[in-house]
Amino acid sequence: MSQKQITAALIGTGRIGKMHAENIISSVPGVCLKTVVDLDLDYKWAEKCGIKVKSNDINQILNDPEIDAVVIATPSASHVDMIKTVAESGKQIFCEKPIAFDPVKISKTIEIVNSAGVKLQVGFNRRFDPDFSRVKEAVKAGEVGDIHIIKITNRDPVRPDLNFIPDSGGLFMDFSVHDFDTMRYLSGSEAEEIYAAGAVLIDPEMKKLNDIDTALITVKLTNGGLCIIDNSRETNYGYDQQIEVFGNKGSISAKNTTPTNTVLCSQNGVFRDKPHFSFVERYQQAFILEMSEFFRWVREEGEPPVSGTDALAAVNMARSAQLSLQKNKPVRVEL
Amino acid sequence: MSQKQITAALIGTGRIGKMHAENIISSVPGVCLKTVVDLDLDYKWAEKCGIKVKSNDINQILNDPEIDAVVIATPSASHVDMIKTVAESGKQIFCEKPIAFDPVKISKTIEIVNSAGVKLQVGFNRRFDPDFSRVKEAVKAGEVGDIHIIKITNRDPVRPDLNFIPDSGGLFMDFSVHDFDTMRYLSGSEAEEIYAAGAVLIDPEMKKLNDIDTALITVKLTNGGLCIIDNSRETNYGYDQQIEVFGNKGSISAKNTTPTNTVLCSQNGVFRDKPHFSFVERYQQAFILEMSEFFRWVREEGEPPVSGTDALAAVNMARSAQLSLQKNKPVRVEL
Amino acid sequence: MSQKQITAALIGTGRIGKMHAENIISSVPGVCLKTVVDLDLDYKWAEKCGIKVKSNDINQILNDPEIDAVVIATPSASHVDMIKTVAESGKQIFCEKPIAFDPVKISKTIEIVNSAGVKLQVGFNRRFDPDFSRVKEAVKAGEVGDIHIIKITNRDPVRPDLNFIPDSGGLFMDFSVHDFDTMRYLSGSEAEEIYAAGAVLIDPEMKKLNDIDTALITVKLTNGGLCIIDNSRETNYGYDQQIEVFGNKGSISAKNTTPTNTVLCSQNGVFRDKPHFSFVERYQQAFILEMSEFFRWVREEGEPPVSGTDALAAVNMARSAQLSLQKNKPVRVEL
Amino acid sequence: MSQKQITAALIGTGRIGKMHAENIISSVPGVCLKTVVDLDLDYKWAEKCGIKVKSNDINQILNDPEIDAVVIATPSASHVDMIKTVAESGKQIFCEKPIAFDPVKISKTIEIVNSAGVKLQVGFNRRFDPDFSRVKEAVKAGEVGDIHIIKITNRDPVRPDLNFIPDSGGLFMDFSVHDFDTMRYLSGSEAEEIYAAGAVLIDPEMKKLNDIDTALITVKLTNGGLCIIDNSRETNYGYDQQIEVFGNKGSISAKNTTPTNTVLCSQNGVFRDKPHFSFVERYQQAFILEMSEFFRWVREEGEPPVSGTDALAAVNMARSAQLSLQKNKPVRVEL
Repeated sequence: MSQKQITAALIGTGRIGKMHAENIISSVPGVCLKTVVDLDLDYKWAEKCGIKVKSNDINQILNDPEIDAVVIATPSASHVDMIKTVAESGKQIFCEKPIAFDPVKISKTIEIVNSAGVKLQVGFNRRFDPDFSRVKEAVKAGEVGDIHIIKITNRDPVRPDLNFIPDSGGLFMDFSVHDFDTMRYLSGSEAEEIYAAGAVLIDPEMKKLNDIDTALITVKLTNGGLCIIDNSRETNYGYDQQIEVFGNKGSISAKNTTPTNTVLCSQNGVFRDKPHFSFVERYQQAFILEMSEFFRWVREEGEPPVSGTDALAAVNMARSAQLSLQKNKPVRVEL
Repeated sequence: MSQKQITAALIGTGRIGKMHAENIISSVPGVCLKTVVDLDLDYKWAEKCGIKVKSNDINQILNDPEIDAVVIATPSASHVDMIKTVAESGKQIFCEKPIAFDPVKISKTIEIVNSAGVKLQVGFNRRFDPDFSRVKEAVKAGEVGDIHIIKITNRDPVRPDLNFIPDSGGLFMDFSVHDFDTMRYLSGSEAEEIYAAGAVLIDPEMKKLNDIDTALITVKLTNGGLCIIDNSRETNYGYDQQIEVFGNKGSISAKNTTPTNTVLCSQNGVFRDKPHFSFVERYQQAFILEMSEFFRWVREEGEPPVSGTDALAAVNMARSAQLSLQKNKPVRVEL
Repeated sequence: MSQKQITAALIGTGRIGKMHAENIISSVPGVCLKTVVDLDLDYKWAEKCGIKVKSNDINQILNDPEIDAVVIATPSASHVDMIKTVAESGKQIFCEKPIAFDPVKISKTIEIVNSAGVKLQVGFNRRFDPDFSRVKEAVKAGEVGDIHIIKITNRDPVRPDLNFIPDSGGLFMDFSVHDFDTMRYLSGSEAEEIYAAGAVLIDPEMKKLNDIDTALITVKLTNGGLCIIDNSRETNYGYDQQIEVFGNKGSISAKNTTPTNTVLCSQNGVFRDKPHFSFVERYQQAFILEMSEFFRWVREEGEPPVSGTDALAAVNMARSAQLSLQKNKPVRVEL
Repeated sequence: MSQKQITAALIGTGRIGKMHAENIISSVPGVCLKTVVDLDLDYKWAEKCGIKVKSNDINQILNDPEIDAVVIATPSASHVDMIKTVAESGKQIFCEKPIAFDPVKISKTIEIVNSAGVKLQVGFNRRFDPDFSRVKEAVKAGEVGDIHIIKITNRDPVRPDLNFIPDSGGLFMDFSVHDFDTMRYLSGSEAEEIYAAGAVLIDPEMKKLNDIDTALITVKLTNGGLCIIDNSRETNYGYDQQIEVFGNKGSISAKNTTPTNTVLCSQNGVFRDKPHFSFVERYQQAFILEMSEFFRWVREEGEPPVSGTDALAAVNMARSAQLSLQKNKPVRVEL
């Protein structure tokens, strides 16, 4: 219990950045969030959080020898530069996904991080969801035997604003990338080949933006198993997040979680809650554990909870899916 | 209620034939099963059932003017000939699936049936399952809106005997063919293109027999929607039969049914029943309704519950899936 | 399989009588329902069922040496006389509940049956429900250990017509009597003391008829356990039939059964089916098994599935509950 | 958002006290827990929590004009004195249940609090459980109509140490008291009459201590409805906490909550999680909301979330239950 106190900083105070800050403050014991930096910082919010150093100058972090670790939550396009800058200052790094859409840039960034001798964890939050972790543990413990089929359902409650689409990287890079990581996390295996079928069914405007809103992605794994991912940009019943791992000894599933566990019986039927509405509620616990695990890793040695290589692998899968969609045929995944 | 009494006959008294006979006798009012014919007839069973005419000669059916309708449950290879023979005698026909594996043969058989002016219903029993029917009705009533994604899980409890495989037509023709029909039934739409990924994960012997035991089949529908079918020849927890139709207004699913609806809480966890063990228990009600609907159609006019064209379409999908597996690319489906 | 064919007769062709007849014909192999008798017989129905002897004279049964067993489904008030008459003809008897409301009359009837050396099974159908049977088996097998608490929910979907109430025997005798039998069946133990709290909450007219429509009945069992029964004459969501047995090793429950096992997710919530609407659908399988078990017992030796003594014990509990309600205090149950 | 900052203190740093402290620090924004006092204070823990004033002298709280509100979590026997002392210092009070076992003492304590013009909230945490709150809202909104039957299941996972029993107040006062409050909270009505049946089924030693470990408590409500509470000191499958409110328009239930929402299908059955193990996990959110609501009430005006009168009413019910058990007859509840 006499664990070393960690001093942390946050760069980028958008929605996700603020969430990470609040989670660290309220739920990660032994970590002091000393500094927040944003070009357009919300000082009032930072004040209320009791954060000591509030600045629009990143040097307040880079030059502060007290700071051990930095959480990067800036816009995606800046991630590569940010990681490089922070790595060179010798501080440990948590960076939101994606590092980049380009595998070469990701590889170079990983090299820089390695050369600098610092740690890098990437923001695939779903690995920390208690339900997904239970599935992972069951798989690892052999409770379902050899993996035959993995099924992943990932459907957003409400389509994103069309303005968001052009810089998003597209459905596979922005959205399915979480499922690619989930597949790798659950199976402990890699994607060998991907076939992606896509459609524009929710909003015809997506076609003009050269993106899709609905997809079925088939993955052949290197361990021989098969994986199917189904994606939609809009349900109207909440955030649909379900997985199944089916093997020769059985099947384990994580069903949707709900705000309450109540049941109403009436003339109109038997009602239960809709799933949690969005990633904020659904993965609340996962976001907290993600931070805890990052700082635990900063403190201790051992394997990274999510590595740069994990980020690279998921991006490679997204690129293969994109290529498959364009060519309408299965595509080998670069390992 | 003063409905015309139908006189029926059965050809073929294997497991399925006997089941149909017993269902007609116990649960289809207004139908008298007068005659059963089999080259190797179980006279004792027929006696116990109270069936009047028991014979190994099909002419006992063909030449009996009292008989209105015939249920064909002979081995698959004889279906085409049986249908032809019975059609020419002018009697109405229910035939177990498949009519044939060859679409040309099916087409010709349909022509013969049409020329003879008789009715032909094919044995896709799952259309009559009350849960699947509820899903179909919800879809038809617009409860889930336009169809975006259909998901079908079809997994057998125990792999078939290897001796069964060579004449089975293969996984797609023998097993997935039910799912192809389910997709068409639920969507009211046709398959446009199919991509099938397959694997031998349960029994390596399947490879030698040039068949697979595990599959993911992606179908693009003519209405724009996407469908994914997952198949396995062996769970070890029972017969896994689930469907979901997801549309722009919501999602409807049929979950597995179970022998009882009991829950045991103990030190080891909270247990519910495994799904029904096999098609016999799972589709018990469907098999009865299939017979009821056949005889209702024989009596009344109207659309066939399952037509020869339905059989043809499902077989065309199976052939496209097979071709896709061989070529490892998506294949257009002949309409 | 060379079991003796049983020849049966039915007296009383109201709703329940017809149901028993149809169940015997369609689902109880080895039993021929030869004769039906009713003072006001529905000849058309009997004709359609293919029943040979149709009469308004009970002697058609009593004097027919072919008839082995008789199902009595006449109005309750006639049960004692009917049992006596049939017993003296030496035929085996199934009689709908109740034999009588008066324990003395029941005891005398049992004596007559015993003297005549015939068998008597009483119509507590719920013992044959597959879900309740699974609970019973779990209890017997020690899966929940020693019984600490039994909970029984029995709620009708729609209140009965007020005209039915005066001759019904009241809520406890007419309705809760099933729960008293269920308690005895599940526990293998007897009621020692009963406290009944009742209320008129659904229809104030019940008060004028000196009956109640809502009740909580606490039973202390001779084995030390406690049982709570909750009754209502009207839900508006179907027939609510649930039980739990809680012991020192765990708990087993039978939840409500539903027409289908489908789930609809929409903007308005996640819906499942309401419970089966009434006893006809809910206990369909139980009614069939009740007949099967009766005729199995007629054929074989062994313990009666439900004995006259069971009927007596349940009626004694109903009387104690009634007395407890009147006196507003716990009442010992006559054993 | 410019809400007044509250300065708080805690007296008593046992298990519950520490939990409240940690909840305030991590999850109740706008409240500063400045001071903790305990005769045997865990200074290390307080240090780690960053609490400024740590003392074994209550005057550190009473004489500190900065402190607005005090959380009392000392042993039960001291609650009356503590409330008196703190009230006289003019500070707002949250006190763990029970205030006292003696209604006269509770009434006097309430008078003192009222005279001092301070607020007093009592620790009935279950009112703040999101699932129970959803049930309450549904009832208030008329979703189930008039209340006919309330069912409350409250069963502990593991029996308490026998040493705990003598000063516990007994099952009704220590354990069922929560259910008495839940009944009042859900119904908005009072208990009129109580009948309690009890048994010693888990541990025969309880008899020597003049207590019981299993109970069924029937309550007649002033609004005409009926309520049944079932209690056990030991399940072996976790903390069983379920409620149902059944009315003339339907029924709403809160089922047990579970650590994850995963399902394992295997040869041995279909498993789900056991309920949360104990009140700590089950009511984690409720404990946080209890503190939030207390400090919200301290800040704003309005009705107390749980008043002294609520504590008194629940204790009166516990006493009536005890009397009913002794006399084995229903007992009127003092209002």
